[in-house]
Amino acid sequence: MNSQKPILETLQRRSTPQVPIWLMRQAGRYLPEYRAVRARAKGFLGLCFTPELAVEVTLQPIRRFPLDAAIIFSDILVIPHALGQPVTFEEGRGPVLEPIRSGDDLRKLSLERLARTLTPVATAIAAVRRELPENVALFGFAGAPWTVASYMVEGIGGSDFALAKTWAYREPDSFNLLIDLLVDATSAYLVQQIEAGAEILQIFDSWAGVLSPPALERWALRPTAEIVRRVKARHPDIPIIVFPRGVGASYARYAAACGSDGLSLDTGVSPEWAAAALQPTMTVQGNLDPLVLAAGGSALREEATHILERLAGGSFIFNLGHGILPQTPPDHVAALCELVHDWKR
Amino acid sequence: MNSQKPILETLQRRSTPQVPIWLMRQAGRYLPEYRAVRARAKGFLGLCFTPELAVEVTLQPIRRFPLDAAIIFSDILVIPHALGQPVTFEEGRGPVLEPIRSGDDLRKLSLERLARTLTPVATAIAAVRRELPENVALFGFAGAPWTVASYMVEGIGGSDFALAKTWAYREPDSFNLLIDLLVDATSAYLVQQIEAGAEILQIFDSWAGVLSPPALERWALRPTAEIVRRVKARHPDIPIIVFPRGVGASYARYAAACGSDGLSLDTGVSPEWAAAALQPTMTVQGNLDPLVLAAGGSALREEATHILERLAGGSFIFNLGHGILPQTPPDHVAALCELVHDWKR
Repeated sequence: MNSQKPILETLQRRSTPQVPIWLMRQAGRYLPEYRAVRARAKGFLGLCFTPELAVEVTLQPIRRFPLDAAIIFSDILVIPHALGQPVTFEEGRGPVLEPIRSGDDLRKLSLERLARTLTPVATAIAAVRRELPENVALFGFAGAPWTVASYMVEGIGGSDFALAKTWAYREPDSFNLLIDLLVDATSAYLVQQIEAGAEILQIFDSWAGVLSPPALERWALRPTAEIVRRVKARHPDIPIIVFPRGVGASYARYAAACGSDGLSLDTGVSPEWAAAALQPTMTVQGNLDPLVLAAGGSALREEATHILERLAGGSFIFNLGHGILPQTPPDHVAALCELVHDWKR
Repeated sequence: MNSQKPILETLQRRSTPQVPIWLMRQAGRYLPEYRAVRARAKGFLGLCFTPELAVEVTLQPIRRFPLDAAIIFSDILVIPHALGQPVTFEEGRGPVLEPIRSGDDLRKLSLERLARTLTPVATAIAAVRRELPENVALFGFAGAPWTVASYMVEGIGGSDFALAKTWAYREPDSFNLLIDLLVDATSAYLVQQIEAGAEILQIFDSWAGVLSPPALERWALRPTAEIVRRVKARHPDIPIIVFPRGVGASYARYAAACGSDGLSLDTGVSPEWAAAALQPTMTVQGNLDPLVLAAGGSALREEATHILERLAGGSFIFNLGHGILPQTPPDHVAALCELVHDWKR
């Protein structure tokens, strides 16, 4: 039984004495001990695929801070890599992929070596589970098909998504083959993570917000809902949180149709609105501006309190609205954990 | 009387036989005749501040397409320029400003030469008014204080807004001096545009979506509402549309509190949601994905129809969810105008 872990209790919609907290990218560059491990890894994917190192960086924030969850150190682009698309991570530039631009290019991809390539992630998950304090839950994760596909098509992040969207709009049938392949791969990978020891899953759709509502429905919500359905068919008791970043009022469509247990809110979502529109049926997670955590001081106290006042009365996990920034002083993370855990419900 | 102009009728919440349409950045790089004028102007600001050229590019799309409005050709960064902050536009790189980073830097700025520096814009507005067909209305515009301030502080666009946000969070009093200065300058500039002949105003808050709800309220909504209040105090009959891009469900806060006549919707806003949450009290404008207009074909027909079916029954102006893309074939704009004007209400 996991009933002593506050995040799992929360996702079962039971109240816990303290508001649980974890932070997206909590294992990352803002920690000097992370930078030290990163410096001796063979590239970023080398860090993801060397269980000893992935375990170490996953545990680093747990040793420093009273966080309620760990999240396995990995990247959403391990899926294209495992499908056979070359992915490299360049310091200061982010990921670079040899782009997939057409139905013909899809022949370069295969599910055949997926599980084998991703086995080191499963190995790391199993090892982290053995090391975690008993009140700390372990997240597995993956990217949602639209977000992963957009990286696969564009080749680099931070673009305007013109190539991925143009393919989707002009040749929806062949683009759908790519999305379907990602639904297959991602469902299998998430099941693999659960069977290795992941106790919760998060699905990141970082670029959902660039889609029009009909495109969101077709390329983001429906494929994500299908992944949730397949994983739940195998493991109905593992809670799933979906993060459709930037979708605004369409978070309510996700609450109605994506089948997850929780929704992670980006920085822009109004806590009042989420309390009224989402929290009656979903656990909500979020959504402090990472820049406020980096800034600290009275702004951090005021913005965190603003969120807690509006959401901590219901089913709620404190988190950021996006990943922690590299310039964040670790002391600010400690102060935030204390503020959240001291909150009187 | 302007009662024959469909956009003005719409903003007075009277129904018109046809759905009116205009497009953000309709005078722009997708038109070969624009590129020809741009090539002979002395830089981008030279184009904005030479009335003969600004008039010419403002009228170009009106000659080609049956659009219901023209928008004076200018840029939101004419305000920092007129306040004394050096702004340059580099081909392919976008605007670059000598950044303002602190309360001390604010002393470099002054309202003194504002109206005089911006007189060429007023001159161009007056000239465009004389040339426009009688059913075509003329928009003036400005950037909202948060968006303009973020360019002024960051120095370049497309950043993560860390510097502007950090200033706002750490030293809100001095950041507020910058915002207040922009409220003064922008209100005066919009009044100047009306008095030159602008019949409608649009206020662009392109980066509102990066703010947390409390920061949105303080740095985006309240200053914008104050500008609307000041302009309406002088010219109560001139309709104002506000475009708080990316604010999601907080569009409803704008409908309740910003005092404008209309709201322009970004691509991500669900038309169903806008019809229920905004249209009962506001004219809404939007929100076709510019990439769909560039792609054309069946996707263009389907996405435009999706929007018209949900919004054309109420007070509605068809537009894009963001500016038109340079790669857009002009034929697609003609096809869209026809589709929108042929729509049976």
